[in-house]
Amino acid sequence: MAESLGIALIGCGTVGTGVAKILTHHANRVTTRTGGKTVAVKRVVARDAGKGRDPAIPSASVGTDWTTAVADPAVQIVVELIGGTTTAKQIVLAALAAGKHVVTANKALLAEHGQELFAAARKAERVICFEAAVAGGIPIIRAMGESLAANQITGIQGILNGTSNFILSSMADNGASYANALTEAQRLGYAEADPTLDVDGSDAAHKLAVLAQIAFGVTAKPSDIEKQGIADIQAMDTRYAAELGYTIKLLAEAWAADKTVALHVAPVLLRKTDPLAQVRGAFNAILVTGDVVGETLYQGPGAGMMPTASSVVADIIDIAVGRAQKTFTAAKLWSGSREFTIVPSEKVRSKFYLRLLVKDEPGTLSEVCRCLANEQISIASVIQHEPLRETEKVVPLVIMTHLAETGRFRTAAAVIDKLTSVAGPAVYFSVDD
Amino acid sequence: MAESLGIALIGCGTVGTGVAKILTHHANRVTTRTGGKTVAVKRVVARDAGKGRDPAIPSASVGTDWTTAVADPAVQIVVELIGGTTTAKQIVLAALAAGKHVVTANKALLAEHGQELFAAARKAERVICFEAAVAGGIPIIRAMGESLAANQITGIQGILNGTSNFILSSMADNGASYANALTEAQRLGYAEADPTLDVDGSDAAHKLAVLAQIAFGVTAKPSDIEKQGIADIQAMDTRYAAELGYTIKLLAEAWAADKTVALHVAPVLLRKTDPLAQVRGAFNAILVTGDVVGETLYQGPGAGMMPTASSVVADIIDIAVGRAQKTFTAAKLWSGSREFTIVPSEKVRSKFYLRLLVKDEPGTLSEVCRCLANEQISIASVIQHEPLRETEKVVPLVIMTHLAETGRFRTAAAVIDKLTSVAGPAVYFSVDD
Repeated sequence: MAESLGIALIGCGTVGTGVAKILTHHANRVTTRTGGKTVAVKRVVARDAGKGRDPAIPSASVGTDWTTAVADPAVQIVVELIGGTTTAKQIVLAALAAGKHVVTANKALLAEHGQELFAAARKAERVICFEAAVAGGIPIIRAMGESLAANQITGIQGILNGTSNFILSSMADNGASYANALTEAQRLGYAEADPTLDVDGSDAAHKLAVLAQIAFGVTAKPSDIEKQGIADIQAMDTRYAAELGYTIKLLAEAWAADKTVALHVAPVLLRKTDPLAQVRGAFNAILVTGDVVGETLYQGPGAGMMPTASSVVADIIDIAVGRAQKTFTAAKLWSGSREFTIVPSEKVRSKFYLRLLVKDEPGTLSEVCRCLANEQISIASVIQHEPLRETEKVVPLVIMTHLAETGRFRTAAAVIDKLTSVAGPAVYFSVDD
Repeated sequence: MAESLGIALIGCGTVGTGVAKILTHHANRVTTRTGGKTVAVKRVVARDAGKGRDPAIPSASVGTDWTTAVADPAVQIVVELIGGTTTAKQIVLAALAAGKHVVTANKALLAEHGQELFAAARKAERVICFEAAVAGGIPIIRAMGESLAANQITGIQGILNGTSNFILSSMADNGASYANALTEAQRLGYAEADPTLDVDGSDAAHKLAVLAQIAFGVTAKPSDIEKQGIADIQAMDTRYAAELGYTIKLLAEAWAADKTVALHVAPVLLRKTDPLAQVRGAFNAILVTGDVVGETLYQGPGAGMMPTASSVVADIIDIAVGRAQKTFTAAKLWSGSREFTIVPSEKVRSKFYLRLLVKDEPGTLSEVCRCLANEQISIASVIQHEPLRETEKVVPLVIMTHLAETGRFRTAAAVIDKLTSVAGPAVYFSVDD
């Protein structure tokens, strides 16, 4: 008799339904890909067990009590899809203690409790797989952890939040304001009613923390990842960026040098010809730099029922094949490696886009330039148009700098903010050339 | 004592030197990534054993006799990098028979002898790994074989030949003729003195055969893959394509439907906004469509010393970790699967770009259109400029069609070729919208 693996799906919303669909509708395919093992959903745990569900989910298996599901001897793999970090953590620890493997799409859980969970998995001699936790259907976890194993990764630039990318694409393509683009994203289901965690960079920061663990072995606390969201970007910024040949994208970046790594999430101006600049709508993409291979790019759907389920099922198949167990043992993730140290981003050198609203009077440009010069920052170009109306006393001033240390640029910007000729805070983004 | 793996490098040109560099200069990294096993080059086989080499290659280990190297009990993995299909096949079979695992970058060998070699590997209970055989540093073999395991792949579109892509990029960017772009590519080392196998689609066809094996389990003979090279593309074609909003790329394509798959290599017009249209110079990229995940894109360096070595060393690490053995057993590649049948591309539906040189006289356009109409092909747009000089009696005529069956389009083109008002053969490419 062919060996069989039982799955408990804890959480049965969009992604859980997608996983059940694949395992049910494509059962033969999954058996072929595992090399002959059948995989079946034995338990489904949902808040409302009586709710009508997709026919792929056998109603007899649906319950509300995760403890019974996790303890079921017919279950070998627990798939945690409820999100959050409290109950999810209890479920994962209980599953491991009961001798089950775990598959999760929960980046927040990994970012916050990775070390504890992975220690528990090692103790239980079980695995935690998480391809779906970052960039949905894009196999970035395997790419960085296995395919690029000959490399020390030196840089990561990722569009990891589809909501933000959708909003920025609308702003760039249609000249929409941030507020209008957000409303449109909400209307189309790309943004939640409260979009904060997507647009302030929190979601991307969680994902970056997971990628940084794989690439550098560092366990990043939330405070280790500087975050700047997209809410301050104005329609004029996307317009000026375009005028200069750039597109603004929210990037999660990691830059390594001399066994240190700087991690941050921020809007960045990318040349229009940069592959990441071309990534539209809710798609995700990650540009990974390895010291041996150079740059490789991975692009695809970053969320959604079936793309995310594709990654969850790939993990299930990996466990069935026995590959995941080999990877888990060799990779030693969240084991407290001290090879790399996380450093603040202030030492990272970058070009900068600086947009000010200044009083249209003599001497203003000279004052601003002096503030930059005081920090040894030289200017590459300046855009200052005529005021639109003659009565307008405040005009936008855009400056592109040459390479400068982030910390020194911030110092200069803080001084510029205090100039009496400057109305409103400096808006600035780094520029990737 | 930590376990140790010995490597025999058979062939020590560019890629072999790159592999030796990684294993020597980054020995600690490799040991960490294998979970503690050391990996060392024990034998190097080269045509000229006395030749001066990179310091990474210990001269004491260099010889000219592959049989001794393959038989050495200190060797557990044989890395075949000599290319060609005769001696390379003997080496791989001998290595497997001697109980060694094999890593190869040889797409021609796999395309032509995959079935025999994989049968020998299964018999010997050893593995053949080949990440470097397709698209150099891009981990497309793992992506398709492992990461997308939940999917039936339904489409592949790959820029798999860097030489052709370099030439086409030059033609598009600088308006160069094919001949001038080729000369430039040769001067810069992107094209060989005899570029035939690169520019006629043979190299890309070998790589497509390997990808088709992974995606569909089909063993494609050379005649199963229709090939059209880039030598017929004229400067005016890249110009007209640009005028219509397209870029011409040499694509290796696989399209599956109803358990059949069509395989071909040909120039294709891609919308300028298509991610594959943006791939410049010698880079490679593959757009993979899966029935669950949708489209994912993989892009990076398709050749070169270190990118290719990155993939070879990833395979070595996979064998050391034990992952490759699990994959090899489960994937059953080149085992004569009959799930998919290869069909000719004539049934594939596509839009077409048709460029003719026609006599500038009344009735010509009408005649051409009638030939298309006879095959039920409708026309989307026509470009016919004034002749450049009044004395010019032959002018280019460009027609874009709506969707049509490839076979019927070819029939129409053959009829058009015989029209007395048409000077010179029809040049046509499919158009991807």
